[in-house]
Amino acid sequence: MKDIATIRKMIERLSILNTRNMYLNDFFHTWKKTDDEIAATFAVADIFRALRENNISSKVFDSGLGISIFRDNSTRTRFSFASACNMLGLEVQDLDEKTSQIAHGETVRETSNMVSFMADVIGIRDDMYIGKGHTYMKEVAAAVQEGYDDGVLEQRPTLVNLQCDIDHPTQSMADLLHVIHEFGGVENLKGKKVAMTWAYSPSYGKPLSVPQGIIGLFTRFGMDVVLAHPEGYNVMGDIEDVAKKNAMLSGGSYARVNSMAEAFKDADIVYPKSWAPFAVMQERTDLVGQGKFDDLKDLEKRCLLNNAKFKDWECTEELMATTKAGKALYMHCLPADITQVNCTQGECAASVFDRYRIPLYKEASYKPYIIAAMIFLSKFRDPNKKLTELLDAGQKRIK
Amino acid sequence: MKDIATIRKMIERLSILNTRNMYLNDFFHTWKKTDDEIAATFAVADIFRALRENNISSKVFDSGLGISIFRDNSTRTRFSFASACNMLGLEVQDLDEKTSQIAHGETVRETSNMVSFMADVIGIRDDMYIGKGHTYMKEVAAAVQEGYDDGVLEQRPTLVNLQCDIDHPTQSMADLLHVIHEFGGVENLKGKKVAMTWAYSPSYGKPLSVPQGIIGLFTRFGMDVVLAHPEGYNVMGDIEDVAKKNAMLSGGSYARVNSMAEAFKDADIVYPKSWAPFAVMQERTDLVGQGKFDDLKDLEKRCLLNNAKFKDWECTEELMATTKAGKALYMHCLPADITQVNCTQGECAASVFDRYRIPLYKEASYKPYIIAAMIFLSKFRDPNKKLTELLDAGQKRIK
Amino acid sequence: MKDIATIRKMIERLSILNTRNMYLNDFFHTWKKTDDEIAATFAVADIFRALRENNISSKVFDSGLGISIFRDNSTRTRFSFASACNMLGLEVQDLDEKTSQIAHGETVRETSNMVSFMADVIGIRDDMYIGKGHTYMKEVAAAVQEGYDDGVLEQRPTLVNLQCDIDHPTQSMADLLHVIHEFGGVENLKGKKVAMTWAYSPSYGKPLSVPQGIIGLFTRFGMDVVLAHPEGYNVMGDIEDVAKKNAMLSGGSYARVNSMAEAFKDADIVYPKSWAPFAVMQERTDLVGQGKFDDLKDLEKRCLLNNAKFKDWECTEELMATTKAGKALYMHCLPADITQVNCTQGECAASVFDRYRIPLYKEASYKPYIIAAMIFLSKFRDPNKKLTELLDAGQKRIK
Repeated sequence: MKDIATIRKMIERLSILNTRNMYLNDFFHTWKKTDDEIAATFAVADIFRALRENNISSKVFDSGLGISIFRDNSTRTRFSFASACNMLGLEVQDLDEKTSQIAHGETVRETSNMVSFMADVIGIRDDMYIGKGHTYMKEVAAAVQEGYDDGVLEQRPTLVNLQCDIDHPTQSMADLLHVIHEFGGVENLKGKKVAMTWAYSPSYGKPLSVPQGIIGLFTRFGMDVVLAHPEGYNVMGDIEDVAKKNAMLSGGSYARVNSMAEAFKDADIVYPKSWAPFAVMQERTDLVGQGKFDDLKDLEKRCLLNNAKFKDWECTEELMATTKAGKALYMHCLPADITQVNCTQGECAASVFDRYRIPLYKEASYKPYIIAAMIFLSKFRDPNKKLTELLDAGQKRIK
Repeated sequence: MKDIATIRKMIERLSILNTRNMYLNDFFHTWKKTDDEIAATFAVADIFRALRENNISSKVFDSGLGISIFRDNSTRTRFSFASACNMLGLEVQDLDEKTSQIAHGETVRETSNMVSFMADVIGIRDDMYIGKGHTYMKEVAAAVQEGYDDGVLEQRPTLVNLQCDIDHPTQSMADLLHVIHEFGGVENLKGKKVAMTWAYSPSYGKPLSVPQGIIGLFTRFGMDVVLAHPEGYNVMGDIEDVAKKNAMLSGGSYARVNSMAEAFKDADIVYPKSWAPFAVMQERTDLVGQGKFDDLKDLEKRCLLNNAKFKDWECTEELMATTKAGKALYMHCLPADITQVNCTQGECAASVFDRYRIPLYKEASYKPYIIAAMIFLSKFRDPNKKLTELLDAGQKRIK
Repeated sequence: MKDIATIRKMIERLSILNTRNMYLNDFFHTWKKTDDEIAATFAVADIFRALRENNISSKVFDSGLGISIFRDNSTRTRFSFASACNMLGLEVQDLDEKTSQIAHGETVRETSNMVSFMADVIGIRDDMYIGKGHTYMKEVAAAVQEGYDDGVLEQRPTLVNLQCDIDHPTQSMADLLHVIHEFGGVENLKGKKVAMTWAYSPSYGKPLSVPQGIIGLFTRFGMDVVLAHPEGYNVMGDIEDVAKKNAMLSGGSYARVNSMAEAFKDADIVYPKSWAPFAVMQERTDLVGQGKFDDLKDLEKRCLLNNAKFKDWECTEELMATTKAGKALYMHCLPADITQVNCTQGECAASVFDRYRIPLYKEASYKPYIIAAMIFLSKFRDPNKKLTELLDAGQKRIK
């Protein structure tokens, strides 16, 4: 546990980072944020965690709402968002598209304003359809900006992308903060090999935003990032371009390989996880758009059959043994498909998963703090000053 | 934005209004409230908005629950209620009749008490069945009064009607507050012509409470209120009687006409909106009561066929041009059925709706403040004193 | 209403009770708690109620979450838990197993941690399947303990059993606190006769945890507790053993009889309520486990047919007349099946139920305070000190 003096130093170090452009701004994709902004998000997340460990309140809102819009099922992200809001003093209101009048034909613009009269933040998960999720979020952001400019809204709620079709920044940032702590500091990441690999799962249609988020972020830290997947399971080319550019700038590397074996070889970090082929996701989006639900079932069948060709893409003990000293850090966004645990054959062998259970849970534990940091940095122009106030006030969380 | 001195004056002016009878009382219908009470509700809503603009907290509850009961889908009213509660320091708990044991045969009296042990306010929307919504609300109010008198409840939660079969006071009050601001003060409303008119919509069964709420409230301000609808689309006669009496007392007028053209002619304000014929709503209530669901479908078909005879009841540019200087204030409770936007033919032409988008959103933005004012006035015997305390304390909302 | 001096004395008396082992501990079954712990829970509940009556805030958390998991429908327990959390300063987050990814194969261990990063308390209702509910709660408790020990969780959320297959402690404790107040103090309970009896209901499958909770708790206070039910409607033998042992230690008695008449004779308290035969509950659990849903329907039919043999097990005026002075305290956990009110024939005659409506509602009103007391005692090592602080601070709840 960090003591008060340490926290004070953490806050001081924050002052050298330029976060001006985060103020009143949204968090869509990590690659749209500067290195300072990424570093500040990690720093604030760590500070919030340290405050909580010391039972110091980080409530910076007296009242206010955090709106959550989940267009896909969610447990961990939902609770992470709720936790982040609660920690800061915001109350969560779910916009449930099933019980609301959205189904009755409201436009995004209208609804965005109607739910935002008292909203300080909006968190959205919309990851199921290629070309849709991010577009929707941009529409919401534009709508509330317009509402604010027009005097409809007293405040401009900022958006946090809780997973779209392109990026999953709260996941990749939590993942990387976990890596930073596991490796003893961001300065130790240079030259580390990361294997982001596809893995077999008996389900289909998992979003691409996790692998895309990982290669789009991890390449910024001088690491050697390898993406591995069977033929046809490509991620978006644009994001690979981001990864390449990042790697060049950071002194790391980015490469695509065709086998788990090659990716795992001497890796420091492995992230084996299933996702759907881009083409399938695209076709699904088109079919849903056209209301062709019978064809959808057919697509699912075909996709599962295709997946089944790659059942050997599993994170086994044998593969783990080939990683750096046989001790690569195994990562997953959870929930995982674990062979003989929740499926016949899946992404990971039970013994591997079980050995890494504690690190996996820790990995997940960063998400509420990352989200809180994103919200905080979008709401306070001078984060250093505000965090110092919190520390000095020393208001007990459990009184 | 109003400055502190202005807010202080707004609060001072509140002291001349008698709100004694609002204390620990419910808000069912605007016409059951005195002019002072209506004026105080507007005043407090404006003060809350000004406080928020100045980032001053209006939390008057340290803890406590606001119970919401929605017997019809809702986005904007749900969020408005949640916003109002949050602003005052209350946490919303939805009583979801689908997941609760109400379906198992609990009586209204029992449930009302069971959810109210820590409830300071109950907001109810029950607008679908003629003769039912208001009756239900009165039952709930009687039940919690009894519970309080019997020592079952530590406090008597007050009720806010979030829309019943008779009135929709949070809507009509928000609407009128919008009008007051658009026209530069309540003193400027005298002699203004208001056209509350039916409009065609491809859906059926929209409640009558909006037109009833509008004619029941707007007639109190010396305005010339005209209600227009096709034959058979009458509203409740009792409410027309209220409108007539109001108009007489306020020096305004109330009239019913048979065409949009007549209503729109030289109007300062137009409110074109679909609703179901009273007779249909009555029949529907009876059929549901008798469990005749096949007949219900038949009723819907007949009603839609009948509606279709009046497709020319649409708020067009041509009609708008006939209003006062061609610039009447267009109003709607939202969501609207907009021709060629969310339906083939609807209540309003797209170009008209789009031109009034900002005022429409502003109109909606008053609802959270109106609800907060209603709750506040039912909970504080001396609103002037309490608001002065809030202003003097100057607790920042975003700290 | 109790005055401040009285409350101070109530708090002082608390100091003689040893509650050390409640700190950071769970509340599963009343019989796992010492007499001091039970007494302290009652005392704190009474203190919280007195504070609220005096408009004094009992917020002891600045922020934090209370997680609720309801695996069965609930109105009153849901609102009681939400009320308790709100009163203490915690925000409720429901883990809805329908909208979450639990359905996708997450293990209990994983989910428990994923929702607990900011959780101070978890309330669980899981009462439908013999051998399952308590087991599930223990698994959750073990998982969060492990998460805390492993450094995954910053705090160890404590569990409150909101009803399992074995006990319903928040109900039985609220019930007993009601009895204590009705009889003017716990010292007046010795020698009082309590009739916990089965009653006919047209529904099947009601949990056994209420009768078990009652006989497991009421026998601790020197009362003569009688359990009556038709042949085959036994409760768990283990709990009867608990009741017998309790009765022996407390100087009371526990007996099983075969008719309502015998149970009601000279009773001071009667608690007539339906429940399913243990064997049926067992069979149902097995059938659900095996996915035999057709057999389930058959089981329900057989069970209802069997129930129907005992339609004369009804709490009638005639039976009430045989109780002590004809004035036994009638109790029920609600909702009750009332003859000619919400069913043709049920657990209780309408006139009896109606005469006891106010005491029944009061009985229910203790539950939020009992839950708050359970949470509080699991979170504060020195409850006396903390309550004194609350009283001295005198923070107004309605400001």
